[in-house]
Amino acid sequence: MTDSSPKLLEIVPLLEAIVGERNILLHPESYLYDETPKPVRPEAERNVVVVRPASTEEVSRILRLANERGIPVFVRGGGTGLSGGAIPTRPGIVMSMERMSRIVEIDEQNLVAVCEAGVTLRQLLEAVEKVPGLSFPPHPGDESAQIGGLVANNAGGARAVKYGVMRNYVLGLEVVLPSGDVLSLGGKVIKNVTGYDLMHLIIGSEGTLCVITKAILRLIPEPGATYTLVIPFDTTAEAIRTVPEILRSGVVPLALEYMDIEAVRAGERVTGKKWPYSGGKAHLMIIVDGGTEDELMHKSEVIERVARRHGALDVLVGVGRREQRDILEIRSLIYEGLKEETIEVLDVSVPIGSIAEFVERCQDEAERLGIKVLHFGHAGDGNVHQQVLRWGFEGDEWVESYSKFKEFAFGLARELGGYITAEHGIGMVKKEDMARTMPETALTLMRAIKRVFDPNNILNPGKVIDP
Amino acid sequence: MTDSSPKLLEIVPLLEAIVGERNILLHPESYLYDETPKPVRPEAERNVVVVRPASTEEVSRILRLANERGIPVFVRGGGTGLSGGAIPTRPGIVMSMERMSRIVEIDEQNLVAVCEAGVTLRQLLEAVEKVPGLSFPPHPGDESAQIGGLVANNAGGARAVKYGVMRNYVLGLEVVLPSGDVLSLGGKVIKNVTGYDLMHLIIGSEGTLCVITKAILRLIPEPGATYTLVIPFDTTAEAIRTVPEILRSGVVPLALEYMDIEAVRAGERVTGKKWPYSGGKAHLMIIVDGGTEDELMHKSEVIERVARRHGALDVLVGVGRREQRDILEIRSLIYEGLKEETIEVLDVSVPIGSIAEFVERCQDEAERLGIKVLHFGHAGDGNVHQQVLRWGFEGDEWVESYSKFKEFAFGLARELGGYITAEHGIGMVKKEDMARTMPETALTLMRAIKRVFDPNNILNPGKVIDP
Repeated sequence: MTDSSPKLLEIVPLLEAIVGERNILLHPESYLYDETPKPVRPEAERNVVVVRPASTEEVSRILRLANERGIPVFVRGGGTGLSGGAIPTRPGIVMSMERMSRIVEIDEQNLVAVCEAGVTLRQLLEAVEKVPGLSFPPHPGDESAQIGGLVANNAGGARAVKYGVMRNYVLGLEVVLPSGDVLSLGGKVIKNVTGYDLMHLIIGSEGTLCVITKAILRLIPEPGATYTLVIPFDTTAEAIRTVPEILRSGVVPLALEYMDIEAVRAGERVTGKKWPYSGGKAHLMIIVDGGTEDELMHKSEVIERVARRHGALDVLVGVGRREQRDILEIRSLIYEGLKEETIEVLDVSVPIGSIAEFVERCQDEAERLGIKVLHFGHAGDGNVHQQVLRWGFEGDEWVESYSKFKEFAFGLARELGGYITAEHGIGMVKKEDMARTMPETALTLMRAIKRVFDPNNILNPGKVIDP
Repeated sequence: MTDSSPKLLEIVPLLEAIVGERNILLHPESYLYDETPKPVRPEAERNVVVVRPASTEEVSRILRLANERGIPVFVRGGGTGLSGGAIPTRPGIVMSMERMSRIVEIDEQNLVAVCEAGVTLRQLLEAVEKVPGLSFPPHPGDESAQIGGLVANNAGGARAVKYGVMRNYVLGLEVVLPSGDVLSLGGKVIKNVTGYDLMHLIIGSEGTLCVITKAILRLIPEPGATYTLVIPFDTTAEAIRTVPEILRSGVVPLALEYMDIEAVRAGERVTGKKWPYSGGKAHLMIIVDGGTEDELMHKSEVIERVARRHGALDVLVGVGRREQRDILEIRSLIYEGLKEETIEVLDVSVPIGSIAEFVERCQDEAERLGIKVLHFGHAGDGNVHQQVLRWGFEGDEWVESYSKFKEFAFGLARELGGYITAEHGIGMVKKEDMARTMPETALTLMRAIKRVFDPNNILNPGKVIDP
């Protein structure tokens, strides 16, 4: 804590009694921010106590205490979010889930993993890898993300085309309400229609309704080997028109990514590696998986036929492990490599058939405003990433152009029947955009639901939904 | 209406002004019941007005009127439910969605179908069939079910093992709140994390939160041809132990059904057809799908190897269309054929690995109570159907044995980490069972959510959640 708030100081000994002195941090430096780009992230409130509970029981006692005294609680997972959802913005408690990092079990009989909320994606993947024949398919990016955060944000990622988002893998949750009450939802069952589905309401609620302490996740058989195809086109429209045709060809790719040539170039610069094709304005990167070489070849051929019919300049099939890894690295490191030069990464969701129009009109608008925007993303599920760069701007000069661009992109996404965020979430960063673009009837319901779960507004106040 | 309730009589002219005289029915005979077995279904209230709106606007005006005057509204889809969810139990309005039967569009570019709520499953399947390469995979049974009802009940069915339940295919909904406000949720987008997911809360809420008027459904590529395998075992335990092994073999079947020999025999009697294997106490019926004969043969072989390792008495592979249709018919007509002799069809959900224990202990208990129970169901997703028959009972003699059996089965399901209903829903029939088996914390949240959407408790009052 940087200054002394009597309300907060008072509870420090009470928190110590719950988690032990060692798990209270009064100098919260490394618990203040997440991966949200600096230019747009909110200023963190430094007058906070970091508490690191080790059990559901401790989480419950902390919440009950905070709720009785009306003290805000900011739950923190791996801190890999891009919307400022983990940043404390008022004096209060930062509850870090890092000590709840136990994989309770990998249940081979029921094909599920049971994890505490603080288990990282990396930990889970390693544990599942040890079990022959099983896998956990979602891969929403940074592997230091924690399961609780992945669920709270309904994380997506490139493999969602074939394997779906986090929501599709959550079978059960243990959560703690602000009252301290512990609630088990779902379980090791696949189907369940007993009453309202509170679990599905909580998935994606960004820590504003309750604290997730445990998750029961579905595992599936290993997908087998992969091929990675790179398919360049002359225009965005041609590349994007190919996408629904591929999706209905009967071959469902593991990943179906769009990248404009500017994004490819940026990825090459960051990695020092070379993309397999140097021309073309718009590229598709497609990963297929399969149990046999025959199956992989068959899938690649089907996609090649569709792509050539839609004007592909070439179809390059990466077969070797290293070759595929290099391609993926170029795609994956665009954000990481350009982080320091990034204003924000937008992630609108639009109908698949409208991606081309969205990208082309945004490209034009960016040019008009003199702002550099790299376009890439999960074309197979209509999720476009727009990495907005500060290139060519001094100091804060970017602010006006950027806010105009964002307003244009969000307006266009809504006009095309889409939404302002597909997987990064609202957090602090898009809060006002959500209020502006969502009908009042929906907001009113959301605020009332927030009040049902969190009547004293202690969980992540100021984020997503203010009651 | 059988007697005159002043409150109801008053609104008849107002309802006529909304939907026209022809769409008001005062003799509601064919709108009173659904497919719930007679012995357990509630008595319908006959003092009701049937209203048949043709548009969202009309639904909105009817609800606003009912809400202002506190008149209950019972929404009715295809009337194929098994839990009495469509049965009016208080004087009020039965709102039949049958006239909202327009398929708004099959959008090939975005791989979605947009339907009004009253479109039947059959209509949708026929419309999708006309589009080469596309399909709508869920098949929850009776094709006269309507889309609105399928969504409101999060319907499941045999194909859920591979293709998931209705929830996995709903991309967007248009709903009308009791206030008359119309709300569009989701859309033609696959990913969306903008705010709380009201859409997923409404899926499975059984018409108690709002009236669904339109749905945007995801379509996927056609699955190709199928083989149907019949695999007999000597014991339930052996059959069920095979299930997770098949699921992790890398082959994901379209359907993975369990049937005890009693259920097989009943299906044979009903259809007059012969099951391909006459011995064995416990049978698995497995459907695999694939694009080529090679793929189908490969999948069948993998399953055969696993099954033989677990004590299968034989593995019979149905390849021909007629042969496969006959097998499926025996499975499908068990319920239909024995309807008149049925007390109830239970559909608990348990972890896959616990099906054997559940079935065996229930078989023992049924024997002890002298009540006939056929066991079959979707073993691939832990959903066991128990068709309880009145064989051997006169008149109402069954009541005591049956209620003891139900209490045993529901208690055991909960003990094994399962739930009392996997896909049939709560409706009227399981209302008290839900209240009894669900923790008070969850019920309290559900009641509060009901009040948020429906403060005057006009939608399906007396069902699922009473606020």
